[in-house]
Amino acid sequence: MTGLAGRAAVAGIGATEFSKESGRSEMRLAVEAVSAALADAGLAPKDIDGLATFTMDSNEEIEVARNLGAGDLTFFSRIHYGGGAACAVVDQAAMAVATGQANVVVCYRALNGRSWRRFGRSMHDKPTAELIHYSWYTPYGLTTPASWVAMFARRYLHATGATTEDFGRVAVAHRAFAATNPNAWFYERPITLEDHQTCRWIVEPLRLLDCCQESDGGVAVIVTTVERARDLRQSPVVIRGSAQGSGAGQEEMTSYYRDDLVRIPEADVVARKLWERSGLTPGDVQTAVIYDPFTPFVLMQLESFGFCEPGGGAAFVREQGIGPGGKLPVNTNGGQLGEGYIHGMNGIAEGVRQVRGTAANQVKDVTNVLVTSGVGVPTSGLILGRDN
Amino acid sequence: MTGLAGRAAVAGIGATEFSKESGRSEMRLAVEAVSAALADAGLAPKDIDGLATFTMDSNEEIEVARNLGAGDLTFFSRIHYGGGAACAVVDQAAMAVATGQANVVVCYRALNGRSWRRFGRSMHDKPTAELIHYSWYTPYGLTTPASWVAMFARRYLHATGATTEDFGRVAVAHRAFAATNPNAWFYERPITLEDHQTCRWIVEPLRLLDCCQESDGGVAVIVTTVERARDLRQSPVVIRGSAQGSGAGQEEMTSYYRDDLVRIPEADVVARKLWERSGLTPGDVQTAVIYDPFTPFVLMQLESFGFCEPGGGAAFVREQGIGPGGKLPVNTNGGQLGEGYIHGMNGIAEGVRQVRGTAANQVKDVTNVLVTSGVGVPTSGLILGRDN
Repeated sequence: MTGLAGRAAVAGIGATEFSKESGRSEMRLAVEAVSAALADAGLAPKDIDGLATFTMDSNEEIEVARNLGAGDLTFFSRIHYGGGAACAVVDQAAMAVATGQANVVVCYRALNGRSWRRFGRSMHDKPTAELIHYSWYTPYGLTTPASWVAMFARRYLHATGATTEDFGRVAVAHRAFAATNPNAWFYERPITLEDHQTCRWIVEPLRLLDCCQESDGGVAVIVTTVERARDLRQSPVVIRGSAQGSGAGQEEMTSYYRDDLVRIPEADVVARKLWERSGLTPGDVQTAVIYDPFTPFVLMQLESFGFCEPGGGAAFVREQGIGPGGKLPVNTNGGQLGEGYIHGMNGIAEGVRQVRGTAANQVKDVTNVLVTSGVGVPTSGLILGRDN
Repeated sequence: MTGLAGRAAVAGIGATEFSKESGRSEMRLAVEAVSAALADAGLAPKDIDGLATFTMDSNEEIEVARNLGAGDLTFFSRIHYGGGAACAVVDQAAMAVATGQANVVVCYRALNGRSWRRFGRSMHDKPTAELIHYSWYTPYGLTTPASWVAMFARRYLHATGATTEDFGRVAVAHRAFAATNPNAWFYERPITLEDHQTCRWIVEPLRLLDCCQESDGGVAVIVTTVERARDLRQSPVVIRGSAQGSGAGQEEMTSYYRDDLVRIPEADVVARKLWERSGLTPGDVQTAVIYDPFTPFVLMQLESFGFCEPGGGAAFVREQGIGPGGKLPVNTNGGQLGEGYIHGMNGIAEGVRQVRGTAANQVKDVTNVLVTSGVGVPTSGLILGRDN
């Protein structure tokens, strides 16, 4: 273990409901989520002195702080790259508390991703330099997340011999967990492999059921030092490792000029750093929360993080299982396919619950959980573990 | 000294020329500035594994990295709030290297602030939530930075008995330094107090010469651990203290509902943390780089950082002096009024030069320099010092 490992902890988690039309502002969603996380931790708004969020979040740190009734702030930061920011904001918070720049940092993300600015639609507003980047792709019809990812998915099928049924098995596993998680949008609505195989194409080879949801909602995670967390309401969930990563040939969603489209170099960087920093191995993790914007990226990440050999993701899911009763239960909250798409932050909350032992689909004897963030972009990851 | 103090250092600085029309893209300015900083430090692009910038910067971390030829990245972050981010990105970098999340972090800011998107013009594009915030002010004509700051300036004159001549003395001092700094836009063009008093109003009580420039240019600062910096080309400039701050009643540029408009609570937070973390006092600083978007904010910051009593900024400038030969030389590069407006990053570079002993207007026997960031917004500060 080096550096940050084991020095910071998650002391509280909170969320709104996950819906398709929240009926209220993104700011209100943010404040509700943070308030719930404070209550969970047994902290007051005045205890907050730091905030971290996504550049993509529309809720300014100081407005969230004011609406909560927080006092002076000594830390505030943002991470770019959409869902790649999810674990990174927690990493930021860990750095801030470990170095004494802040005592209690709130990480938050709130969006009306379905009722307001739909995530799956063509090209959101982008800063100019990013529009220039995307302009190399949009004239060819590559204008949506599904279209960008379909390119990698097609290549993955070709190179590994996997089939779209293998993508389907990921969706079926996630929806099985969602079906028994009362907080999931798809609660009590499992699917079969046949449902997957017969549903409509979005962008070949991705079907509707390969795509995560668009959701309205907010999630907050409170980070402090392990020592401080021990005095609070919940048992600390220790941040055993945290990492950001961007790899060779990295673009935002469109890294098509890499030599090998079947690997995710940014996830490889995060994996290497996480195992190195935590001193743990894939065998030390009992369950994982793997960012699932589209099913093929779950297979590819199982490979990056070392749960199976390169190219072996489909066989791992088929033979070992990632659903209920599987060797490595993945996204026990139902994931972003089944629970809700809060840009990865709801996955971090699920990781915390698994370590606490309070998840709807609790895995037995959890000591460590891997959580990953958006892929196809510069990304991040966490290993959350029990306080020994 | 606590936490981060003394653990990280600036190993390299670099900049483009400061102009009104760079004739090239903001991306190219960023890459030129970073390349110059790498050369200054004696580092190669492959040594970079982290980048930090402003949310307002249009140059994506991964695009800058690719254009430089950097390798895998393990740290990237942004700070919101315009010029309030300047010292904060260095603080971020210090946290990253101190906790081992990265080894060499490049902080950069590049903009065509005059030839492309003019900074002093009415309302740039803003995210929705911020547009809502500003919509409380824009109908009343408060649409530009000068208009927002004029409200504080007027109150300052009323409450402290200062006059616009006191504002003018700040401009004259800064322009005197610019006149002898070959890199300053206003090189060899000093002004007199009469020039100030007779120039046109922008927004009363602010005259043209109270307002900083709009500039094109880029600046980069390279941060690593003190140990690593000792093996590089330049003597390390140690980060003796770094802090971010947001205070009670904080808004972005328009904190008019505070009880006292003559103080800057966010600067007070930064000052308290900087002196506490560094173990230093204002008497330990031989020169300061004080963020100067408009002259009144320099007076107010002299008070916040403890160089004089509250309300005593004007008397301090008049009687002790902040120009050449003054008791506390301030903005020896000419500041943003005289050198260029690179959103505070050029001030950090000047702080580094003063510690190194290589400034155009070098102050004698510098051991520590205070550097501050944008005010009227959540902000940040640094104390840079010699490696003992």
